[in-house]
Amino acid sequence: MEKGSLLYEGKAKRVYKTDDEQIVWIEYKDSATAFNGEKKATIDGKGRLNNEITSLLFLKLHDAGIPSHFVKRLSETEQLVQKVDIVPLEVVVRNVAAGSFSKRLGVEEGKELSKPLVEFYLKDDALGDPLITDDHVEELKLATPEEVAQLKEKALTVNATLSSFFKELGIRLIDFKLEFGKNAAGELLLADEISPDTCRLWDAVTNEKFDKDVFRRDLGSLTDAYETILEKLGGPQHV
Amino acid sequence: MEKGSLLYEGKAKRVYKTDDEQIVWIEYKDSATAFNGEKKATIDGKGRLNNEITSLLFLKLHDAGIPSHFVKRLSETEQLVQKVDIVPLEVVVRNVAAGSFSKRLGVEEGKELSKPLVEFYLKDDALGDPLITDDHVEELKLATPEEVAQLKEKALTVNATLSSFFKELGIRLIDFKLEFGKNAAGELLLADEISPDTCRLWDAVTNEKFDKDVFRRDLGSLTDAYETILEKLGGPQHV
Repeated sequence: MEKGSLLYEGKAKRVYKTDDEQIVWIEYKDSATAFNGEKKATIDGKGRLNNEITSLLFLKLHDAGIPSHFVKRLSETEQLVQKVDIVPLEVVVRNVAAGSFSKRLGVEEGKELSKPLVEFYLKDDALGDPLITDDHVEELKLATPEEVAQLKEKALTVNATLSSFFKELGIRLIDFKLEFGKNAAGELLLADEISPDTCRLWDAVTNEKFDKDVFRRDLGSLTDAYETILEKLGGPQHV
Repeated sequence: MEKGSLLYEGKAKRVYKTDDEQIVWIEYKDSATAFNGEKKATIDGKGRLNNEITSLLFLKLHDAGIPSHFVKRLSETEQLVQKVDIVPLEVVVRNVAAGSFSKRLGVEEGKELSKPLVEFYLKDDALGDPLITDDHVEELKLATPEEVAQLKEKALTVNATLSSFFKELGIRLIDFKLEFGKNAAGELLLADEISPDTCRLWDAVTNEKFDKDVFRRDLGSLTDAYETILEKLGGPQHV
């Protein structure tokens, strides 16, 4: 597989063409951003950690029968994925109140929810990625009602699999953000990344945070936290 | 009916006991507030206009078979209503993009929606009345899923009735906010008020605004705008 020209550069990744039209080459960057880009930093090793963790988690989900855009890990900071048209929604699953949910609704951080809850946010930096309802999704033609039902079902399946997987490792999956996209065949696939940038991961005993809140809230070394997660997952994949 | 002691004073109304436990006496105030109380004014005549308009609209809805807490108009600024426990939700119906919907989702003000859309906002001034999803309503135990379905159905019925009524008067019903409450018998009733404070009302030809946006956006005389609506509705009720 040949790496081609740069297609797109986002906050956390660069996306390159390959000689296969349906495959793109992803390079994870060392940049950290929070609060819709208001807080920024470059953190050596972050790209490697998120690439390794995402690769392991997509493989884990694949083994559990949950397909994604992931094709293969290429190097410490690179992976190949299927080219997809991203659905412009952030699909958030919450098991425990935290972050914007707690702030928005006045619910104490750490309160277990009565059942996992799925939320949609409009992917639009200029609008600050607002929470939207199912009816908004339909009105804005972001997805059909059938796709909304599929997105929720897929998100809850990912949650069940990852929650029990992390539980075995002594980690609570508090909440996480997924993105989905459609490949050339029109299949709705899990896409983007699954990493401590996109999940809240707390120690099952101490509730110590091993996720981007370490950066958002200045709680210590982000790479130490992410390295802990990578080690619990069995360390980097060697290909 | 005897007016008893003050039960509650809100931003726009005072609520008094009566000698009937199931009935309360409402007095509409002349205060105007917007932006979660950040903008405030006292506007002579506003209480009278909202009391008269609300009384007429609740009667109109009653004639159309839509029950509400409204019992009777008492005076220019007073009415009797059934005592209800208010469901802590603002139920918003939108026919045309405007206000917070336009700002939040980046949709041009004035764009017709493909169909009427119902939204729920948590009634909580300290949290700024945030938009919430059906799942939030359930998680926070604000209403059961059956009640959510009832609230949506009732809100859409009110919308159909009021939209066609205002259309006959040369007015477009752009959007509005409803509140509901349960009476002593456990019936879920339309409550609060329906007035230019809680509806966006635009001239069908010129799109001139006859609602609280006149105050929010400093577009002229609020009482002139509200008086226009009251006159189109046939003027004050004489009892």
